[in-house]
Amino acid sequence: MTGSAPASKTPPLFSGLYTDRYELSMAWVYWREGRADTPAVFDYFFRTLPFHGGYAVFAGAATLVEALEQFRFGEGEREFLRREGFDPEFVEALREFRFRGSIWMPPEGEVVFPLEPVARVEGGLLETQLIETLLLNVLNFQTLIATKAARCVEAARGRIVSEFGLRRAQGLAGRWASRAAAIGGCASTSNLDAARRYGLRSAGTMAHAFVQSHGDELAAFRAYAEVHGSNTVLLLDTYDTLRSGLPNAITVARELAARGQRLAGVRIDSGDLAYQARAVRQALDAAGFPDVKIVASNQLDEFLIRSLLEQGAPIDVFGVGTALAAGLPEAALDGVYKLAECDGRPCLKRADGLAKQTLPGRKAVSRYRDADGRFAADAIHLADEPPPDRMIHPHDPMRRLKLEGWQAEPLLRPVVENGRPVAALPDVSAAAAHARERLAALPAEHHRFENPHVYKVGISPRLAALREELMRPWLET
Amino acid sequence: MTGSAPASKTPPLFSGLYTDRYELSMAWVYWREGRADTPAVFDYFFRTLPFHGGYAVFAGAATLVEALEQFRFGEGEREFLRREGFDPEFVEALREFRFRGSIWMPPEGEVVFPLEPVARVEGGLLETQLIETLLLNVLNFQTLIATKAARCVEAARGRIVSEFGLRRAQGLAGRWASRAAAIGGCASTSNLDAARRYGLRSAGTMAHAFVQSHGDELAAFRAYAEVHGSNTVLLLDTYDTLRSGLPNAITVARELAARGQRLAGVRIDSGDLAYQARAVRQALDAAGFPDVKIVASNQLDEFLIRSLLEQGAPIDVFGVGTALAAGLPEAALDGVYKLAECDGRPCLKRADGLAKQTLPGRKAVSRYRDADGRFAADAIHLADEPPPDRMIHPHDPMRRLKLEGWQAEPLLRPVVENGRPVAALPDVSAAAAHARERLAALPAEHHRFENPHVYKVGISPRLAALREELMRPWLET
Repeated sequence: MTGSAPASKTPPLFSGLYTDRYELSMAWVYWREGRADTPAVFDYFFRTLPFHGGYAVFAGAATLVEALEQFRFGEGEREFLRREGFDPEFVEALREFRFRGSIWMPPEGEVVFPLEPVARVEGGLLETQLIETLLLNVLNFQTLIATKAARCVEAARGRIVSEFGLRRAQGLAGRWASRAAAIGGCASTSNLDAARRYGLRSAGTMAHAFVQSHGDELAAFRAYAEVHGSNTVLLLDTYDTLRSGLPNAITVARELAARGQRLAGVRIDSGDLAYQARAVRQALDAAGFPDVKIVASNQLDEFLIRSLLEQGAPIDVFGVGTALAAGLPEAALDGVYKLAECDGRPCLKRADGLAKQTLPGRKAVSRYRDADGRFAADAIHLADEPPPDRMIHPHDPMRRLKLEGWQAEPLLRPVVENGRPVAALPDVSAAAAHARERLAALPAEHHRFENPHVYKVGISPRLAALREELMRPWLET
Repeated sequence: MTGSAPASKTPPLFSGLYTDRYELSMAWVYWREGRADTPAVFDYFFRTLPFHGGYAVFAGAATLVEALEQFRFGEGEREFLRREGFDPEFVEALREFRFRGSIWMPPEGEVVFPLEPVARVEGGLLETQLIETLLLNVLNFQTLIATKAARCVEAARGRIVSEFGLRRAQGLAGRWASRAAAIGGCASTSNLDAARRYGLRSAGTMAHAFVQSHGDELAAFRAYAEVHGSNTVLLLDTYDTLRSGLPNAITVARELAARGQRLAGVRIDSGDLAYQARAVRQALDAAGFPDVKIVASNQLDEFLIRSLLEQGAPIDVFGVGTALAAGLPEAALDGVYKLAECDGRPCLKRADGLAKQTLPGRKAVSRYRDADGRFAADAIHLADEPPPDRMIHPHDPMRRLKLEGWQAEPLLRPVVENGRPVAALPDVSAAAAHARERLAALPAEHHRFENPHVYKVGISPRLAALREELMRPWLET
């Protein structure tokens, strides 16, 4: 047995039903037409950066690969589809379904930008279409949250950011929110389930209810310290942060010290955090406890963290909840999944103007580093051409950039080949390390919160020519 | 065997670890103090209505009850906790843990308002504290989404609203989003997994990729209609809605009619939806297809639905995705879980001013109907007093309301008693019916989107007196 709590009698978390109905409606047609195995290439990309920021941090690849393993149609799923009116013969054909295609993605933690393919999916038409919803569901959300976390961590300038969002997360989303937040740089999470699944560091203090349940605040603090010793973090604001919580915490810090232990920290969760943190710091220092950390929480986000530090608030740890776990204010990344090639033929969805025009063909992305090794530009080009030495703005043919002399590296790597993961995927801490490294290589002007410099993403002349060729018939009508 | 796709080797969806670490840190202390079974009462309530609206629709009760069944500590969970540094003896005590307390909630679909307890949880201090995060995670999100759905459905004035959000949902949140959207009044969902789990109607059309993969749009439409017959809904905007999609759809409608079938609908997913819907309606009518429905999608929400209908757009079905599944723009309900009574002693968390002051004691909520049977006011009162005949504004002692002569009914009912569900909970369609009925009883002025009239929620004179008595010591310091 697995040694876990009793499993639910409900269906497994993932199955082939983790999708929109229309994917199966289309699959049925492809199957009937005998086109299930027609070769197809889809691109996943997003159009706008969240949070008006200058970059996004890619996350979700390992989750997607894990979910794909379970994206099957067991008897339960097949029976459901028959009841829903799908042709029993088609449903029977799904019995052996598993994704046998290939997926190219950057490593988790990569910095990525609008319009460039962040995943390229190749395989039969049926299977590549069928996984659309799953892929979007996983990658859109985790990339959103990893990006938000990276922003909070940047704002914290070396102080610790801990993700505290489970209670305000969008239900089950909390699990992936904690995972993606760790990739974006959060040092710990309050979420024990995610900590266990992904090997994250867990952290937590106490609730106001704990203090209230004891009636007397000092008695509550003592009871907690008795059990948690040097791991004790005391919540100061149940009654009055400066007049009650703080002196009681100092009393307990002294009692711990007398036992050879030390108070780990105090938490402030309401009121003017900057003012209170300063007063708390001063009192702790004066009492001989300069090492007791100050944890602040209460509706924080990257802007409030920045503001607190600008005010000189001596906060050591920022607990960030709702804004991080739900990726506020956008709460969604606008990633889409578009057919780029079918049966060897490059495809376009027609749009009004170049801005919403998709890019045809099987494509690669090359990232260029400048002489100092910093990221300078990304070029989208056809997979069968080398990294181009110049590129064209995707929406404005008059804007061009020379790439000569810059080092190019491929952004997309094979992650799944013919249905099998190419190698064990990096774990969350490796992805977080990758994010740190890549964010460090991204010039400062793309990091700022207000009007960040737009990172250059262009298309190769050959790709531009292919797009033009495919659009020509429409221009003539 | 269960007849489902192969189950994951990963831990079950819910366990006792679906929580914040601090709940277990506190539980450890309660256990050590011998206070695990000290009687406690917690309230769940929220402070502000989402979407600047006039009401919220309660959802998530059945999910919470189901999750509580699995909120246990199997060997896997206990081993994790030992590794995390929890006292092995305490962890061993969790082996037999299950929630044995009681939960009072309204039926799902109830309209609820700020400050009033929407769940009252009673039991031992340890168990009632431990389920905090789970309860907040489930009820905050589902109530948010059910409320958003109700708003979209109201805006649609009798037209159908279908939830299309899985691809932009916050990852795993999609499942509960579909469930809650159905409670709020959505007629169907694109999400097959949720449709199966909750018995929802599923719906879907086709993607642009389907049309592109055929190269020729008419060929794509024909292939789809060949398979789907009278269930065919054709997507018009892959190349050009009015000049290509529409005439091709009419051709297929004629071909279907010639076979004794009929085209179910067409979908528009880009451009000016009002203008296009009118042109499409006119052409379909002129061609003799007045029954073909028009489905519109593309970043819709309640405001755009209202605007489209104000413009007279002849849209029959609104497909609503991101804004609904992620509950934009708030994306989170600010529900909290506060200790109201411990060991028979009513509790307060002190706050600056009455607005953030919690309400002490074991409380009930009575809803009053006016002479016409419409909802007029809710009174929060002590559970051991009858519905009061007058109430006081919770934050402004000078504002009072007489309740005499109005019919009172209890808002909270026992859902879990001593750890066991009192009865089978209503399914989603019963909850949706309840929401319809209750929303109909809520006067129109609370429904409008702009500056809705604030529904009156007050506290009984006895509760006000109790709060004052508990605050007195602070006022004197």
